[in-house]
Amino acid sequence: MPKPLRVPFDGLAPGVCPLGAPLARYVTRVHRLGPGAALCLFDPQTGLEADGELVDGPSPEVWCRVGAPRPSGYRPLPVHLLQGLGKADKPEEVIRAATALGVASVRLVQTERSVARLSPERGGGRLERWRRIAVEAARQSGRGDIPALTGPSALEEALASVDAEVRVALAASAEPLFFRLGRWRGGEPVALLVGPEGGLGAAERQLAASAGFLPASLGSTTLRTELAGVAALGALVALAAAPIDS
Amino acid sequence: MPKPLRVPFDGLAPGVCPLGAPLARYVTRVHRLGPGAALCLFDPQTGLEADGELVDGPSPEVWCRVGAPRPSGYRPLPVHLLQGLGKADKPEEVIRAATALGVASVRLVQTERSVARLSPERGGGRLERWRRIAVEAARQSGRGDIPALTGPSALEEALASVDAEVRVALAASAEPLFFRLGRWRGGEPVALLVGPEGGLGAAERQLAASAGFLPASLGSTTLRTELAGVAALGALVALAAAPIDS
Repeated sequence: MPKPLRVPFDGLAPGVCPLGAPLARYVTRVHRLGPGAALCLFDPQTGLEADGELVDGPSPEVWCRVGAPRPSGYRPLPVHLLQGLGKADKPEEVIRAATALGVASVRLVQTERSVARLSPERGGGRLERWRRIAVEAARQSGRGDIPALTGPSALEEALASVDAEVRVALAASAEPLFFRLGRWRGGEPVALLVGPEGGLGAAERQLAASAGFLPASLGSTTLRTELAGVAALGALVALAAAPIDS
Repeated sequence: MPKPLRVPFDGLAPGVCPLGAPLARYVTRVHRLGPGAALCLFDPQTGLEADGELVDGPSPEVWCRVGAPRPSGYRPLPVHLLQGLGKADKPEEVIRAATALGVASVRLVQTERSVARLSPERGGGRLERWRRIAVEAARQSGRGDIPALTGPSALEEALASVDAEVRVALAASAEPLFFRLGRWRGGEPVALLVGPEGGLGAAERQLAASAGFLPASLGSTTLRTELAGVAALGALVALAAAPIDS
């Protein structure tokens, strides 16, 4: 039997209810499911999930019987990503990857070299878009929640918001990442600061250093910002999955 | 003084010679350099580099004085990536990332679930394109060579070509990657097999296992193939850069 289709569903509660139009279309048109088909419903805001079953009901709605919600059991990695806002769809790319890799939060940061300057209003619109992308990445990757998404924030505000003792800032030439992480093996929160294209400016690096962020590098090559972030997150995931004594 | 512009240059030899048309355009139009400007020329095939200086000479050519070639000093990570051929531009994305992350070789592999089936002729054309993408990634990332690029190969052929004792195949549910890597810290060659979208088929996984590839996973989420590969390479780079006792 194939695994039930995972679908995001806000505000899970037991009972029979209609699926919203986009979800109804996704389930019946894209996946061609009908009455009797099993779903796994997950609420990305609460991390709860529930069994669902499509049932007959008055058209044009598509009806679903929702079981008792339970915790999804997914525990995000306590990694808090501060990502310099890049141009075009780079923030989306980073949010998609960071969600799939299991991070706990992503804060987009407005920096000196961020090409895209977002007004609070436009920023708000993008936050909604970023949330949809995270929900889709959560569905695909099988995690039962999405990272806390915030921003775009000023760097000072972003640095002040951090609640993690381990703090590293990716840099081109610096001590190796795993050296900076010391005995971190996924237990405690870690904050990872990644600059936009072109990196952080000198004053910004100084600000980050004053806030306790230690510069850390991945290997000896120069990496584009989105690659550096994903590669560093991959390293954190691998380290957390396989405790190695230091 | 800004660092000299890095430009790829096949067949470095000391003396004064014209730059080919694409390179001349890149140097004079994109970067607006003229006589007296310093270049760092690198030959991605041989790993040699040389100082260069733009000099006056008969138009319409753009002339360059090339100094004595020297080894670039860049040592690739002894990581050999076997990548299941994905659709659209996914192979290009993987080659770009793997080159920047410093791997020694990339072999594209034709698998059961590879959507793109390439005839040897079309495969040849793509190999040339892949090489250009690797050269550009080498330029950007500052490595002095490109990975050995081969394929598309049948899986059997790809597995038989591997000359590495440490062999891992990324899989959704398996022992953690760093557990599988044991005491590997960047010294010996390691082969990393990454399936295409949808993963390897059961018979293919069996073939890989028979060839000594141990299934290894990154964290507990399900990752798209291109994300899984990049994240795993990031983990290998980080591990090689910061020896941790096991």
